[in-house]
Amino acid sequence: MNELKASPAAVFAHRHLLGIEGLLPAEIIALLDLAEEAVEVSRQVEKKKAVLRGRTQINLFFEASTRTQSSFELAGKRLGADVMNMSVGSSSVKKGETLIDTAMTLNAMNPDILVVRHHAAGAVHLLAQKVGCSVINAGDGAHEHPTQALLDALTIRRHKGPIHDLTVAICGDILHSRVARSNIMLLNALGARVRCIGPSTLLPKGVDRLGVEIFTDMRKGLKDADIVMMLRLQRERMDGSFVPSVREYFHFFGLDAEKLAYAKPGALVMHPGPMNRGVEIDSAIADGPQSLIRDQVEMGVAVRMAVLEALAQNLPNG
Amino acid sequence: MNELKASPAAVFAHRHLLGIEGLLPAEIIALLDLAEEAVEVSRQVEKKKAVLRGRTQINLFFEASTRTQSSFELAGKRLGADVMNMSVGSSSVKKGETLIDTAMTLNAMNPDILVVRHHAAGAVHLLAQKVGCSVINAGDGAHEHPTQALLDALTIRRHKGPIHDLTVAICGDILHSRVARSNIMLLNALGARVRCIGPSTLLPKGVDRLGVEIFTDMRKGLKDADIVMMLRLQRERMDGSFVPSVREYFHFFGLDAEKLAYAKPGALVMHPGPMNRGVEIDSAIADGPQSLIRDQVEMGVAVRMAVLEALAQNLPNG
Amino acid sequence: MNELKASPAAVFAHRHLLGIEGLLPAEIIALLDLAEEAVEVSRQVEKKKAVLRGRTQINLFFEASTRTQSSFELAGKRLGADVMNMSVGSSSVKKGETLIDTAMTLNAMNPDILVVRHHAAGAVHLLAQKVGCSVINAGDGAHEHPTQALLDALTIRRHKGPIHDLTVAICGDILHSRVARSNIMLLNALGARVRCIGPSTLLPKGVDRLGVEIFTDMRKGLKDADIVMMLRLQRERMDGSFVPSVREYFHFFGLDAEKLAYAKPGALVMHPGPMNRGVEIDSAIADGPQSLIRDQVEMGVAVRMAVLEALAQNLPNG
Repeated sequence: MNELKASPAAVFAHRHLLGIEGLLPAEIIALLDLAEEAVEVSRQVEKKKAVLRGRTQINLFFEASTRTQSSFELAGKRLGADVMNMSVGSSSVKKGETLIDTAMTLNAMNPDILVVRHHAAGAVHLLAQKVGCSVINAGDGAHEHPTQALLDALTIRRHKGPIHDLTVAICGDILHSRVARSNIMLLNALGARVRCIGPSTLLPKGVDRLGVEIFTDMRKGLKDADIVMMLRLQRERMDGSFVPSVREYFHFFGLDAEKLAYAKPGALVMHPGPMNRGVEIDSAIADGPQSLIRDQVEMGVAVRMAVLEALAQNLPNG
Repeated sequence: MNELKASPAAVFAHRHLLGIEGLLPAEIIALLDLAEEAVEVSRQVEKKKAVLRGRTQINLFFEASTRTQSSFELAGKRLGADVMNMSVGSSSVKKGETLIDTAMTLNAMNPDILVVRHHAAGAVHLLAQKVGCSVINAGDGAHEHPTQALLDALTIRRHKGPIHDLTVAICGDILHSRVARSNIMLLNALGARVRCIGPSTLLPKGVDRLGVEIFTDMRKGLKDADIVMMLRLQRERMDGSFVPSVREYFHFFGLDAEKLAYAKPGALVMHPGPMNRGVEIDSAIADGPQSLIRDQVEMGVAVRMAVLEALAQNLPNG
Repeated sequence: MNELKASPAAVFAHRHLLGIEGLLPAEIIALLDLAEEAVEVSRQVEKKKAVLRGRTQINLFFEASTRTQSSFELAGKRLGADVMNMSVGSSSVKKGETLIDTAMTLNAMNPDILVVRHHAAGAVHLLAQKVGCSVINAGDGAHEHPTQALLDALTIRRHKGPIHDLTVAICGDILHSRVARSNIMLLNALGARVRCIGPSTLLPKGVDRLGVEIFTDMRKGLKDADIVMMLRLQRERMDGSFVPSVREYFHFFGLDAEKLAYAKPGALVMHPGPMNRGVEIDSAIADGPQSLIRDQVEMGVAVRMAVLEALAQNLPNG
């Protein structure tokens, strides 16, 4: 039924996907290769691969995320899983203990896979130590968002070929971005040159230790970049004193045609969504010929199918 | 697997169902015929027809509607589709651009069918021009609600035979009603005589140009009607000055036994729900022997199955 | 397909499960036996039994309950049903009439099974008289919660053997607890000795007529108990004057190691969840070796699978 060139489980031998940190390049590439097959499945009339038939997938979201939850839901359903969504309103949660109580209650219902988003960095790791099923980190605080980095890598690879030696500029609110953290680790692992560009107040201390070049000037940072990866300005995560004015932010760090011209000809533009149009990116660029933003969404479903499939093969009796 | 007398796709050759406007009588009748089969499917123990197996249906509701969304959800599931609900709270939407961004994001996930409800007339048409999948209008502002008109027609036809030459009185808040608009067009297309009855403040200007007779007196308008179609008083859509008092409204336009007696003997009563009992309709009538209100709900699932099936056959590779 | 030692339908010949009241001991035991098989299904890789394939299950919850609704959702999906969740916000419901209108609307969509939770005692009975499908009571006010009592019985039986002659102490807020009511009836039917322990303000008048022994002192009431069943303190259901202070409540009625020592050696501890840790139960007990709290959750899915399966066999053409 499940005809793989080589079993991803033979390469990717983990029970959980909690982050990009610690993954080997060969493991990342095995997931991307598996995702290529999933792209084809989702483009067929009958979008089905039966590898999770009879399995139970629970999407446990402590932060609302229409886009990511939908992507995981469709990924699970296309693999034949029974998918259940649990959106836990922040009002009904009293941190710490209740996170674990909620997870242990769900765990007792014999799920195979828990997909978890939580506002606290590390919450997903804690939870993975407690439950008997596989856990996928769908974003934990400002820590990691590994499936976003995988879908970005798949999108890049399909348009630019091997990621090795590409120059990728990650721009904007690096400080609050789990997307940036996961991408930096993945891109470094695959041999890209990674740059971070942003106002000094939105660059985390020690970001240079992550093996990236730092820029506070978009024009300098974008020079000769193959990929320009914009980040969402996460004003909701900022404390009052550091919130830049939207107009000023766009002037210095918003991607428009003039700034993009500093990148390599044919450079491609990405954004994890949802976009603040006119804040971090100009609409003409977001919808223009160099934009890969919609490809990213399609690759998101495919990458999540790949991760679900790889983990399912590593489950007991998988 | 899918044994049709005649393929509805041969007759109904559209990619979207955005409204009744523009449909040919033969197309409407093809959908009603297909819905008759769906009624039988839903009455079986195993309520399944596999025509949408592996297809992805997304219900994208910008306005809450428990009833309509449920009806589409069951319709899709009974045809074997993977159905995903997306309720977009009005709070999180900032009109225009975001509608399109949301739709384009979902479109990138390779759905086959998007079922869309939106508070703005025309929003669904705009969206259909942007996406690659089929779009079904599940209600857009005061514009159209085509599956409601189709389910009403199916209900009428099953009880009164061919719609041609029946007299149908649509009563109440015509001004704010997409149900009325879609019904007027469908009933006219199939040759019924259509009357609109309501207070002059709730009749849209130019409604007579739609080919209906206008009445402001229930007793006169109901005379010799075969079908009495009550509308929900949509107080939430009215600006302050025009909101009638509930008591006064019921006195003049609420359907009770005394007013219903002016219609033809055996006239049948309909309401799209949810009802304001004691406002536009008396409970004794709503629950009485002339009421088709519960039949309408059952026909709703059947008509939506028919529309989904017809559109699926028109999809690329369908 | 459905290989049972003995058909539960031959024993459990009801169309609805509205309460434990009125069930015969043999019927209860038939459901528990069927649930044992469901435990095995849920522990397999492919957690599927096709007895509800093509059936429609609607979960109609007028009170939010993440845990119970999830349990019913997974139970239905593992049996192959199409499951639809309907959470009806208390804001949008105007009691009485609307409950029935909502139920009749859903009933017209040809469901096979309605799972209903409502804040009013008796609401589920009323609804069962109106609809054509099977109804399962998932909790109605302070009246009954039959699947909770069944899952508790299954949990006890798997750890202590036959329930006959066991001593079970139900502790805490008996007054507001449908869990207590259903458990008292079930445990009495199977021949257990049942005690109720709580402050006199939280013991309903006439509880002794239910065939239980009454205690207001935990140490006396727990003496020689085999099972200690703690209840959630439902402060949201109390009117102001009777709400005890949390600290005082825990001092007198909270289960800690010191009080538990009065029970039989090896006594087992239960709680229907969600727990107020430090209010009715100490965390060290809740997570300790005598706790069955997580087993209860697993048994919850199994018992609901058994009830769904038994009712499905009693449906017309089932």
